[in-house]
Amino acid sequence: MHEIVNEVRQWMIAAGETIKDNLNKEDLVVETKSGRKDLVTELDKATQDFLIGKIQSYDPDAKILGEENGLDTLADMSGRVFIIDPIDGTMNFVLEKENFCIMIAIYEEGKGRFGFVYNVMKDEFLWGGPEIGVYNNGEKIEPPKDIALSEGLVGLNSPMLIHNRHHETEVSDKALGIRMTGCAGVELIALAKGQRAGYLSHLAPWDYAPGGVLLETLGLKMANIKGEPLSLNGRELFIGGTPKAFEELLAIVNQ
Amino acid sequence: MHEIVNEVRQWMIAAGETIKDNLNKEDLVVETKSGRKDLVTELDKATQDFLIGKIQSYDPDAKILGEENGLDTLADMSGRVFIIDPIDGTMNFVLEKENFCIMIAIYEEGKGRFGFVYNVMKDEFLWGGPEIGVYNNGEKIEPPKDIALSEGLVGLNSPMLIHNRHHETEVSDKALGIRMTGCAGVELIALAKGQRAGYLSHLAPWDYAPGGVLLETLGLKMANIKGEPLSLNGRELFIGGTPKAFEELLAIVNQ
Repeated sequence: MHEIVNEVRQWMIAAGETIKDNLNKEDLVVETKSGRKDLVTELDKATQDFLIGKIQSYDPDAKILGEENGLDTLADMSGRVFIIDPIDGTMNFVLEKENFCIMIAIYEEGKGRFGFVYNVMKDEFLWGGPEIGVYNNGEKIEPPKDIALSEGLVGLNSPMLIHNRHHETEVSDKALGIRMTGCAGVELIALAKGQRAGYLSHLAPWDYAPGGVLLETLGLKMANIKGEPLSLNGRELFIGGTPKAFEELLAIVNQ
Repeated sequence: MHEIVNEVRQWMIAAGETIKDNLNKEDLVVETKSGRKDLVTELDKATQDFLIGKIQSYDPDAKILGEENGLDTLADMSGRVFIIDPIDGTMNFVLEKENFCIMIAIYEEGKGRFGFVYNVMKDEFLWGGPEIGVYNNGEKIEPPKDIALSEGLVGLNSPMLIHNRHHETEVSDKALGIRMTGCAGVELIALAKGQRAGYLSHLAPWDYAPGGVLLETLGLKMANIKGEPLSLNGRELFIGGTPKAFEELLAIVNQ
């Protein structure tokens, strides 16, 4: 196994321990960002700072793209880039105290090399990349079956479904069911494990890059609304799925 | 602790073990009931039969109301009635292989005495009733905070949200977020643990009765769309929540 994979896993497990220790603090500081439904806590920021410290001492030349603390854009993807989401699913973190993930992707020269998605409270940790395959808590996982929309569940976000911006009601009709978990990491793990036919949401690079490396390694598909590679620059419509369901989703949202 | 509580817990844990052993069978028989999105498996039926056998040898006089095998109506709630859902969340069971529950309620003379909700793969088992309080894996839980809709998550089912039959989009606007888990048991556990402000769905007695006993024991509210007690007879709109969120939900769906 590549040394960097074990390093990053250790950082993330340590970050997870700190989060678990502080999860039930009565005086956890929660702030809003773009609106009352967009939360950030002191632990999102502290976790990102902890991970940045680890990255900088491991590889001082690496670049960092991350959700918090003003690191949310990066013009130049050359060299090694760490893309980090310290707590994906902050609303779940605050209100459910579970169903949130720590996520890191390692890109090199613009290509996804390793992805790490850690559902902390479930102790479910998926990592991998094109050179090594994908592991779930240390056990190698096989590519999921190529199921069609009509054979599976689709993850959606609620504003998209309510406003039917991209024909989401037709997605819901065609699929066997719709799920909303409130956490991109949870959805991308579900796709990697074969628990979903697809996932449609509006995501930022740190939401999709870590799980995206795993999806592509497993032969699953992801793209923006035009079917083009995601830009790693700002929020975009994200379409992911099995090869069959991905094509169906792309056709539905573009009709 | 009441002897019947320990008895029922042992039956449910044994049923869960059988389900775990058979979860990954390649040739699991899955049939549809009212339509292609309404599934039942041989394990739903076998689990119900197993639980009925246990009930009948424990209390031959008890009546049984259950989802499968033609036991789905019961005119007379006098005496002791076991209400059972062998696998709540069958779609999740088939497609996710997790996020499903075994559930039992014990009613006596029309009143909920004990409820049991067991999220099998998560090993999360809540049980209790008005005489004993509510336990989560053996640890007594306190009534959750009385949060308003604007302070919490609401569980919804997707057809209701898409068709906005009861002003669900307004529910979604007022709440901090919407979740769809595809399992009433998962939602009712979440309510009992304080992870939800409310839950709105279209449910049968075996979906709401087991978790409902826990909710009412904890001071949470549930009712039909008119704010009346649920009938234990056929599917109804189910409104559940904290006292504050319950009143808000009732007002929104009836406006």
